[in-house]
This record gives sequence, C-alpha cells and structure tokens, in this order.
Amino acid sequence: MDLEKVLKENIDCLSNIGNAPTGGMTRLLYSDSWLAAQNTVKEKLEAIGMSASFDEVGNLFGRVEGTKYPEETILSGSHIDTVVNGGTLDGQFGVIAAYLAIQYLLETHGKPLRSLEVISMAEEEGSRFPTVFWGSKNFVQEAKKEDVLEIADFEGLKFIDEMKRCGFDFRDEKKEKRDDIKAFVEIHIEQGNVLEKEELQIGVVNNIAGQKRYTIVLKGEANHAGTTPMGYRKDAVYGFSEICYEAINRALEVGDPLVLTFGKVEPKPNTVNVVPGEVLFTMDCRHTDSVALASFTEEIEALMQEIAKKHGLAIDIDLWMDEAPVPMDATIVSTIEKAAQSEKMKYKLMHSGAGHDSQIIAPHFPTAMIFVPSINGISHNPAEETKLDDLVAGVKVLASTLYELAYK
Amino acid sequence: MDLEKVLKENIDCLSNIGNAPTGGMTRLLYSDSWLAAQNTVKEKLEAIGMSASFDEVGNLFGRVEGTKYPEETILSGSHIDTVVNGGTLDGQFGVIAAYLAIQYLLETHGKPLRSLEVISMAEEEGSRFPTVFWGSKNFVQEAKKEDVLEIADFEGLKFIDEMKRCGFDFRDEKKEKRDDIKAFVEIHIEQGNVLEKEELQIGVVNNIAGQKRYTIVLKGEANHAGTTPMGYRKDAVYGFSEICYEAINRALEVGDPLVLTFGKVEPKPNTVNVVPGEVLFTMDCRHTDSVALASFTEEIEALMQEIAKKHGLAIDIDLWMDEAPVPMDATIVSTIEKAAQSEKMKYKLMHSGAGHDSQIIAPHFPTAMIFVPSINGISHNPAEETKLDDLVAGVKVLASTLYELAYK
Repeated sequence: MDLEKVLKENIDCLSNIGNAPTGGMTRLLYSDSWLAAQNTVKEKLEAIGMSASFDEVGNLFGRVEGTKYPEETILSGSHIDTVVNGGTLDGQFGVIAAYLAIQYLLETHGKPLRSLEVISMAEEEGSRFPTVFWGSKNFVQEAKKEDVLEIADFEGLKFIDEMKRCGFDFRDEKKEKRDDIKAFVEIHIEQGNVLEKEELQIGVVNNIAGQKRYTIVLKGEANHAGTTPMGYRKDAVYGFSEICYEAINRALEVGDPLVLTFGKVEPKPNTVNVVPGEVLFTMDCRHTDSVALASFTEEIEALMQEIAKKHGLAIDIDLWMDEAPVPMDATIVSTIEKAAQSEKMKYKLMHSGAGHDSQIIAPHFPTAMIFVPSINGISHNPAEETKLDDLVAGVKVLASTLYELAYK
Repeated sequence: MDLEKVLKENIDCLSNIGNAPTGGMTRLLYSDSWLAAQNTVKEKLEAIGMSASFDEVGNLFGRVEGTKYPEETILSGSHIDTVVNGGTLDGQFGVIAAYLAIQYLLETHGKPLRSLEVISMAEEEGSRFPTVFWGSKNFVQEAKKEDVLEIADFEGLKFIDEMKRCGFDFRDEKKEKRDDIKAFVEIHIEQGNVLEKEELQIGVVNNIAGQKRYTIVLKGEANHAGTTPMGYRKDAVYGFSEICYEAINRALEVGDPLVLTFGKVEPKPNTVNVVPGEVLFTMDCRHTDSVALASFTEEIEALMQEIAKKHGLAIDIDLWMDEAPVPMDATIVSTIEKAAQSEKMKYKLMHSGAGHDSQIIAPHFPTAMIFVPSINGISHNPAEETKLDDLVAGVKVLASTLYELAYK
C-alpha cells in the first residue's frame, strides 16, 4: 500500500465534495455536500471490508470485529463538516487517516484482536446552525433535542427540517451510552505554529486547554479632543490600553501554556476628534490547568477593576464562556508517544489550545489526540495546508497506535 | 434694554429656524433654513439702525458708520450654520451677541467714533459639503473657487447649484482684501469644560491651538487565539496598547496645554478568538506652541517606531492634518481682559482647543475671542447649553470691549 499516494487520492476525492465557488471548502451539517461526503466515506469504509452504518443523527461508523475481544472497541476518527470557506484538512483528515490506518493494519496484520471502528462525526464546527459538537455530543448521549428544536440557519432553514431531509432524526434519549469503547484516538491538524516553529512532525496531545471568554465594557466620558484638558478626561481607550498592556505583560511573565488575547476592541464614538467615552473589548484566556487558569483570570479581573478605578471609569466584566481543561488519557498518550518513537518521528508532548471533539468524548471514554503541523499555523481558511510527508507521518503514528491498542 | 430678556428672545427666534425634527438644530450652508436665518438676522440688523448687506457668497454684514474714523472698522460676529443635530449656541450666539452688544452701545453711547460691523458668516462647520470655513475664507479672500466647483452634498446636490439657488455666486477673486478692519472680536461657547470646572464666566482667548492628526496602521500576524503561544505572536492590539499607554502617560507628564487623543481604534479581524493581525488607529495632538507641538509629536513618532519594532510589527504613520497654532492679537486680548475686569467677571486667559473662524481671520486682521462656559462641556449636540447669566456676561464683556475699541 503506497500510503502517500492513497492518502493524497482520498483527500482529493473528499475535497471535491463541498468545494466552494468562493474558494475553500464549505460543507455544512445536513447540506447536500455534507450528505454526499458521508455517503462517499461509507463506500470507502465498505470497500476496505468494514461494515458501515449511520446512527440516528448522521454520525457514520465503520467497524471490523475483533477476533478475541470483539466487545472491546478501539475507535478513531474526527468530524466531516467544515467552516464556511474552510480548508481540506480540518476534520476530514482525521476521518481519512483513521480508515487508511485501519486498511493498512488489515492488509499488514489481518484481523485485530479487539474491534476497530472509524467514526465520521456529523458536526463539530457550529458553522451552519447555532449548535456545536452535535456529532460527538450525540455519540456520548449528551446532545439535547430541545437545544436544536427551534434553531435555523442563516437562510431560515430549520435544523429539524434539514436533518429529516437528509434521512436522519433525533436519537433515542433513553438508549444507554455504549460501554465497549476502550479508546478513542483523534488525529487532527494543529491549527497553530508550534510544531512548524520547532521543526517537529508529530504532536502528542496530553491536554485540551480550558478557556474563559469575557466581554468587558469601560465607561468614561466622551469629550471634545481639543477643548478637554488631559486632567479633566475619563478616556476609556486610555484605560483599555493600560489594562491590555499590563495584562499581556503579566501573561508573558507567567508563560506557556497560558495564552491571553484581546481580540475585539470597539470604542465609542470611534472618531478622531472625540475622547472615547466608552470601549467594549473581549478577553480570551486559556490554560491547561484549571487552577492556574482561575488564578490568573482572578488576578486580571482585579487588575482591571483597579485600573478602571484609577481612571475614574465604570467597568462591567461579563464572563460568558468558562470551559474547564480536558486532560487526555495518560495510557493512550503514552502509547502514542511510543508509537512516535518506534516510527522515528520528531515529536513533542503538547496541549491543544483549540477545541476538538476529543474534549467531548474524553470525559466518557479514554481519549487522546495526535497533531500534525499546520503550515504557517493557518486553518479555517482555503490556505490551510500540511506537508504530505507530515500527513503520512501522522497516519503512520496513528496506525502504530491502533496496532498497540487493538492487536496486542 | 433688558439684556437678559432680549438675548433670550433673539436666541429663541433664531433657534426656530432649522429646528430639526430629529432633535437639535440642522442649518446647513445654502439650505432653505440657512437662507431664512441669514434674512432674519438682516432684518434684525436693520431694525437696530445698521445698514445690512450680503457679500457675493452669502456672508452677511451690518454696519454703522463711525463719526470720526469711519474708515476704521471694528468687527464682531461668528457663523450662522450648524452641524447636523447641533445646539442653539454654536455659531449663532456670536452673531446675536455682536448685534445686541452694538444695539446696547448705540442706545447707551450713541454713534461710535470708528465704524462698527457685525458679520454673520456663511459657513464654518463643514457639515454639508466637504469644505470648511467657507465664510471666513471668503471674507479674507482665501477661499478658492476650484476647491468647491465639483463638490456635492450627501444627497448629490452640487455646491455651486445650491449657492446659486440661494442667490449667491463666487466672489471676484481679483478684488482686494479689505484694509479697514482694525479689530475682529468673536464670542463663542467654550465647547469644553474648563470654565465650568473652574467656576469662571469668561474665557479670554489668547491662542487657538495647532493640531496634528494622524492615522497609524500597525501590522503583525492574525493567529488562532488558542493555538498560538504568546512567544510566537505578533499582536497588533498589544502593540497599540503600549503605544497608547506610554504616549498618554508622556502627555500627562508634559501637561497643559498639550492634549493627546487616540479616538479611533479598529483592529482586524476584531474577533474574540483571533490574535489581531492589524490595527488602525488615529492620534490627535494639539498645543498652542508650534515648537512644543512639533517636538512632542516627533518624540511620540519615535516612540511608536520603537514599540512597533520591539513587537515585530510593521508601522505606517500618516500625518494628514497639520495646522499651526494661531496666536490672538495681544492688544485686543488685553482690551478684553480689562473689559472682564471692569464688568467684575470671573475670567481667565486661556487657549481654544477647537478651531474657529478667528483662526482664519487672525493672520489678516487683529483678532481675539471671548468664551462663555459650556454646561458639561457639551457642544455639537442638542444638549449644548450655557447658563443665561453666563451668556449675558459674555455680551456685556463683548460690549465693553467694542466700546473700548470703537468709542475711544
């Protein structure tokens, strides 16, 4: 099996489904291209000798029974949907890598002792409907019907209608969660530039960072920029600048894996000759350790209050996202690490700063992730790319990991 | 003459012309309400015994001949136009105060030795067409036909058509500038909060601040807020925050009359979970001394370059407005000061941080300004207001000043 050739063919094949005329890939949940992609993957699973089937909501599974412990399942895969004008790797690479790794194992070693499964999850990106992780949350029986009953896409098409149009329905909420999954391994592009900067091929993910997102409003007084002496001002942008400057300086002192971003800044009235009376800004803070994350954000919240007070500004701090870090399963992490060593790959243990299906699955089943480098750290963009060598390296490490988990 | 009553009546009368249904006053150059206001002022000038006439472009003059030195003219007034949804004082108070002060002087002291004139200038605000100081620039023969020949308002109505519709035309550019103006005194609301904060009634303006306006673009790299470690970032908003914080700290050290404002901040992509790759911001810096202004902005430009370099950001600094400070005439300033003293007003010598017709006229004729307080420093807004007592105080100081200049 010429892995390089087959991998390229499979990526090209799936990338033709949902190829957006505006550039990049757009394959949104319960759209025609989404259904075509899932059906194409189903054919591919069957072609390599797996039995393939959808669950009620449209997650696709391929399965090959284990010869000795068929009731123990080793699972690999990722999501099939994309963002609008996304790339050709985010999501589908994890699906393709999973079935090619299994194809390679079946060809090389025959049937596994434990059952091997591929999952091509229905949705992760939240790009069409205001819901996210629909695939993985249904897989672990966490998704709730009432959360999506009334939602619609930007064209007004209802979630439920589009789901049924594709032949799917809500899952039976009374059904028990599967108890046969002994491991889930997801391979994904890094979506960052760490592996590239450090000239590595593989990231062995031991943690998915927790994140807190805030919207903060500072209120002072809008005044004439010419006639208001500095001493009589309550300049909201000046207050923001001190907060942003001091907070990021602190984040740099604290160091990795903490990250802190002030991504949105919207002064009012936002005009050259008016002292800004108000500014709305966002703060996104992530860390792999929940105690360290809480301690840092508490420090920054206090700093913001103090700076606002000093400037005579009113401050409103709204924490609207608060997700705990999700540690990966230590045994699987160690298995992946050994696989990377045995395949002679340059790798590192690292965390994921982005969210993934694995963070939904990890609290239920032993889970870990493998990263391959992203060129220039770019993702969610038609320019998303990874060297073919690195993609192949990823499939090899995944295959070696699945071999350890399913054949021994 | 009950100055308080007459002043209130005159402000109310003119404020009915251009009363905007959306709140405040909107009286734009060469509009119907603008023409109605100028014609109303003309009637008022004639009613107090002045001869009244328009120049070619629509500046309105009222004149009473001096008995001893008729060829020496003492001029007072301001502009008749407003911003969109402006207040009832910016501009027209200076016109009303001028003719009421002269009415008071004529009633109290009879004819002046020198000629007294009122000017109700056509336009100062630049609110309808992309031109500003059309009134004062025509008065001093500086306005250029070619600058307005092609311009139109936001509805597409051409400047030249609207001018002609109102019965006006371009001035004869060959005509010589008047040489009879011995003094111009403009009274205006402060549009700031200095007089109010210091509990004063009168500002004697000795300088109109120079100003420099910049647009600055910082360029770094847009990156994923979760997957990009702090050390691998080129965060344009972080760079901006250091520039804004350090520059305003320096401005506070330097102290009055320097003012520095970062009024507009526009990051890209301006999203919570993306490290901002770019930020566009404005800087507005004013000072009454051109050497001090240049020295400070040079220092800040160097600081911005240095900070950008430290952050690995590209920087583009565009200086698009560079107006020198305009000192007022020392003799008239001293005359106004003595008038404020003789009227027992609480006053201070101060500069204007905002632009006024006086800055156009001062390089041609001896000029000075009188300020009255603005409640909460508000102007260009329906909430623009000054206590009636303070308005009356202003008219009294203006009358006393004109008496010194025209009767002695």
